[in-house]
Formats: sequence, structure tokens, C-alpha cells
Amino acid sequence: MDLNTINSMSYEEFLDIFGNIIERCPIITAAIWSQFPFASVTELENSVYDFIESLPLTGKEGILRCHPDLAGRDLMRGTLTDESQTEQAQAGLTALTPKERETLNLLNSQYKAKFGFPFVICAKMSDKNKIMRELASRLQNEQSQELQIGIAEVKKICHLRVNDLFLNVKLPTKL
Amino acid sequence: MDLNTINSMSYEEFLDIFGNIIERCPIITAAIWSQFPFASVTELENSVYDFIESLPLTGKEGILRCHPDLAGRDLMRGTLTDESQTEQAQAGLTALTPKERETLNLLNSQYKAKFGFPFVICAKMSDKNKIMRELASRLQNEQSQELQIGIAEVKKICHLRVNDLFLNVKLPTKL
Repeated sequence: MDLNTINSMSYEEFLDIFGNIIERCPIITAAIWSQFPFASVTELENSVYDFIESLPLTGKEGILRCHPDLAGRDLMRGTLTDESQTEQAQAGLTALTPKERETLNLLNSQYKAKFGFPFVICAKMSDKNKIMRELASRLQNEQSQELQIGIAEVKKICHLRVNDLFLNVKLPTKL
Repeated sequence: MDLNTINSMSYEEFLDIFGNIIERCPIITAAIWSQFPFASVTELENSVYDFIESLPLTGKEGILRCHPDLAGRDLMRGTLTDESQTEQAQAGLTALTPKERETLNLLNSQYKAKFGFPFVICAKMSDKNKIMRELASRLQNEQSQELQIGIAEVKKICHLRVNDLFLNVKLPTKL
């Protein structure tokens, strides 16, 4: 995909395609449109990361709280975003045994009770066994560490989603 | 509704009910959960407004860009949020004549082309004739004025949505 194509988009076109590069936070995509044109994909991504870093701590916690639990309520209800559905499926989280799901739900609950936000990990760079080990291990951290680690994972997820869009998206023919 | 009920909610329960008090910006609801408990509804609302004010200018523009056009694409496609659908219907925007819709669409396009975000007005406090007059008039403003006016309208919309939720919401019986 040609970056010029992106740079010529209205905010509505940009939001239609890039609105979920940060899970359920279209405001961030909408905000960085103000910085058009971008000289590179990296510059586009850095705008997202800079915006996240400009937020108060509560805003960063808010970003994490917009993420679904892994193999949790939204997956069961079919209300995951398309991106999360794909990522959780690729990590094997849509095909857990009842025992595995029970363990993961218990760990997720303990994590949320301790930190006040969900466990966020770049599932696409992981698999179900690694995710469960990571979750059990990160549960031992302090809140401030976990906020930092969670936001770093959000950025990894964003990077992969942007990459996917640049590789795969079929743009409207009029552009 | 009892404020204690709200204050005892998990972030997930709070997001389920209050997630769209700022249109398509659940991150803001998710962020203010960090400030639980609230002593009053006004304090809850003020947390939202303070969060908005803490954002960089691009973030405020981002909030406006998460709002749909009045009588625009999302209304035609049936993809408005429930709250916007109700508000636009109450203002008479779902029952425009073809001529009225054409005029409104033209004004909306001119507004977006000039300012880079959509015309936002608290439709529930207005009606279709007043909205068209306001739109034509605000089109004459400077960008910085319109950003300020738009955000003030966002706060009015939020205030009415919060009020509605406190008056009408049926809480889960377990609470």
C-alpha cells in the first residue's frame, strides 16, 4: 500500500480502516489524523505511541480496560472485535479444553482483582501455553510495572495490526 | 439509582453501562473508573470533563471525529450507536425531507472540509430547523472556536446521557 494513499484520506476513510489499531480506542486513530501527512509507516506508528505517552496514567489504564479478557466473556458472547478474534484464534485461545479455560479464567480474575485492568499480551506473538505461564508470572508484579508492560504489549499489538493493514487491506478503488 | 451501586461496580460493569457517555470513546469511561468512588453524579461528570481537558488538542479533535454526522452515513447505514440514534430521532433528523437531507449533507461536507472534524451539537436540546441554522452560522467561525464549541457540546451530550442512565437504567439484580 502506498503511503500517499493514506495521506490523502479523509478522517472518515482513515478511521474506517485504521480505527481499531488500538483496541476499542478510535479516538487515538482520530487524533493522529491531525498529523497528516506521514513520511513513513514508522512515523504513523510513532504518532500513536506518542499520543499514548501523552495521556495521564488513568488514560493508560483506560486503554488497558478497553481490551477484552483472553478467552473471556467477549469471546464466549461473540462480541470480540474482528482483530481480537483473529489474534486469540491464532494463539489457540478459541480451542481451549474446559480445564484450560477454567485455569485461564481464574488467573484473569485474580489479575483484574489485583490490578484493576485486564492482562494484556500480544497474543499473535505467543501461544496458549506461553500466555498462561506469562499470566501466572506477571500476576506477581507491582501495579506500576504491569501498567508499563501492558502498554508495551498494546504497542506491539498496534504494530502488527498496522503491518497487516499495510500488507492486506483492499483500498477503495476511487483512491 | 444509588451512587453506591455505581461505586461498587467492576470496570467491566461500569463500561457496560457508561461506556458511551462520550460517543465512541469508552477509553474515557474506562479511565475515570480509576477515580472511584464518586461522592456525587456531578463529581463523576467532572472527572469526564477534566479528563477531556487533560488531552492535547489532537485528542479533543479526535473526540469530535468519533462523532457521526447528523443525518449522515451512519444513520443511513443503521450503524449509529443507540444513544445517537435516539438523539437524532428526537431532533427530527430521521424524518427529513429529501431536500432537507440534501441541504444538511452539503453543510456537513462544507463544515468538515473547513475544520477537519464533524459538526457536533447536542441534538437533544435542539430540533432540525435550529440545527440547520446553527450549522450555517458556525460554519463562519475559526477552527479554534469550533473546537471549543464542539467540545462544549460533547459535554452537554454527556450530561444528558449520564442523567438518562441514572434515571432509567435497569441494574443487574445481583447488585
